[in-house]
Amino acid sequence: MAGLFSSAPKRVKVVEVGARDGLQNEPDNVPTHQKVALVDALSEAAIPQVEVTSFVSPKWIPQLADAVEVASKITRRAGTIYSALVPNMEGYERFREAGLDQAALFVSASETHNKKNVNKTIAETLEAFRPVAEAAKSDGVPLRAYVSTVLGCPYEGAVTPQKVRDTALALLDLGVAELSLGDTIGAGNPASLERLLDAVLRDVPVEKIALHLHDTRGTALANVVVGLEMGVTTFDAAIGGLGGCPYAPGASGNLPTEDLVQLLHGMGVETDIDYEKLIEAARLARRLVGRPLPSHMLAASEGPRGVPPIHG
Amino acid sequence: MAGLFSSAPKRVKVVEVGARDGLQNEPDNVPTHQKVALVDALSEAAIPQVEVTSFVSPKWIPQLADAVEVASKITRRAGTIYSALVPNMEGYERFREAGLDQAALFVSASETHNKKNVNKTIAETLEAFRPVAEAAKSDGVPLRAYVSTVLGCPYEGAVTPQKVRDTALALLDLGVAELSLGDTIGAGNPASLERLLDAVLRDVPVEKIALHLHDTRGTALANVVVGLEMGVTTFDAAIGGLGGCPYAPGASGNLPTEDLVQLLHGMGVETDIDYEKLIEAARLARRLVGRPLPSHMLAASEGPRGVPPIHG
Repeated sequence: MAGLFSSAPKRVKVVEVGARDGLQNEPDNVPTHQKVALVDALSEAAIPQVEVTSFVSPKWIPQLADAVEVASKITRRAGTIYSALVPNMEGYERFREAGLDQAALFVSASETHNKKNVNKTIAETLEAFRPVAEAAKSDGVPLRAYVSTVLGCPYEGAVTPQKVRDTALALLDLGVAELSLGDTIGAGNPASLERLLDAVLRDVPVEKIALHLHDTRGTALANVVVGLEMGVTTFDAAIGGLGGCPYAPGASGNLPTEDLVQLLHGMGVETDIDYEKLIEAARLARRLVGRPLPSHMLAASEGPRGVPPIHG
Repeated sequence: MAGLFSSAPKRVKVVEVGARDGLQNEPDNVPTHQKVALVDALSEAAIPQVEVTSFVSPKWIPQLADAVEVASKITRRAGTIYSALVPNMEGYERFREAGLDQAALFVSASETHNKKNVNKTIAETLEAFRPVAEAAKSDGVPLRAYVSTVLGCPYEGAVTPQKVRDTALALLDLGVAELSLGDTIGAGNPASLERLLDAVLRDVPVEKIALHLHDTRGTALANVVVGLEMGVTTFDAAIGGLGGCPYAPGASGNLPTEDLVQLLHGMGVETDIDYEKLIEAARLARRLVGRPLPSHMLAASEGPRGVPPIHG
């Protein structure tokens, strides 16, 4: 046997999305200074890419109405890329005002999910990105794009790899540098993810792909294994697992960053992240939302004897 | 690429250990009739192999002092193998009285862990198994054996694949039919598990190997993926994830059976298990212990919209 991980990367880029993907779902508003403190704690842990907030309309997501203020108050660490979600030109104007490093577009691979999310077809959404992409290009701002529901849609069920591939290629045509493929409802499994990546990697260089895996069914790290085996070098995660459903205590949503990093470091895959400071950031995240978070390493670090990460 | 799962089995045997490995750790005694009800619920879900209890001395584990009574009161389902832990000849006599199908021995791959667990060296433990193995052979009782701490010991740290392999071979010499390799503290990761299996499978047929993966660090299903890729056909799990540390609410211990089965069915791997009845058994397990259990599928099944398993 040639070794399961012979094509796996020796170094992985972890993209932290908790401050945006997590806090946008919180029923109780988190105060601005606490959002800033969370981003600063994530920077302290030397995470290479941190999504700070979202410049969607405060009418849609009132939790993030203070996006420009948060972005202006965080302490920017050299070596970290700070990004934010940008849905349209209005959002891009606020993004430019805030002066962050990278703008992130988002579209669903499922027509129904996209329609429910932004009230546009996928084609209309991509068309609306065009002026943003042009402005970003002339400003020298790199673009990330999220493609959601890539392994299943809560309304349509199955989503074909072909549909994801087509959406991905349309985004690359717009000039997107990094494509984050999102298993929004945690419906993927190692076999379905392999089929998806087989289809997408036929046309997209693996270096442009990030995996954004949700842990709803406990399968996020199992799917990370497949991503690593197929050479994926970028993985999204949320500190503490922020972004689970806040109405179902203990329910899992995002993959906890510290669980991902523990796995990677244990396997000898480098991330440059300071694990101890990451756990501190997870504790802060839990204080911020005031409820238990679905993080294994956070719980394990507080067990009777304390469970350390295991290094490879 | 030949496909990551080209060597994976199409059918997997799930061995349910919650009624033993889970309940032996409960600080509050679970009444005998409730233990019987849990085993019966597991049988209803058509699990092919169920570990019912342990015939260790009640002085060691008072929680399971009613082992013979539990074994005699359960409803035996045709097609399910009922097993129990047997540490020595005294335990084997009680096992024979109870009339279960399979006896399970246990030894650690770490000297320190074995000493703390049963106050014997590994060699002394194996020697003490000899009369049990001989009695089982003459009674026509098949033997399973657990090798614990195979991917790390809480006292010694690293455990070498060579040590696990030697212990496994000694157990096979005793006539053991099924070897369950236990990651007792959930210290393994996909790379270290691959190294272990590479070493063990050089001398042991894969059909004799079961993986008993704990989820302390959230890596159990990630490790299952490696087991499947390397052709392992038997996986242990505990309903609801019973057997986590009861003193740390929400902390993960055993891999929840329903999370494992959801993954397998999603990948198109057959188990013959009735998933809906498995979730009912997990609900019963939670009522029995009276606290939240670390099961993703149990939480997901009770979310705002309910999260169904995804079938491949």
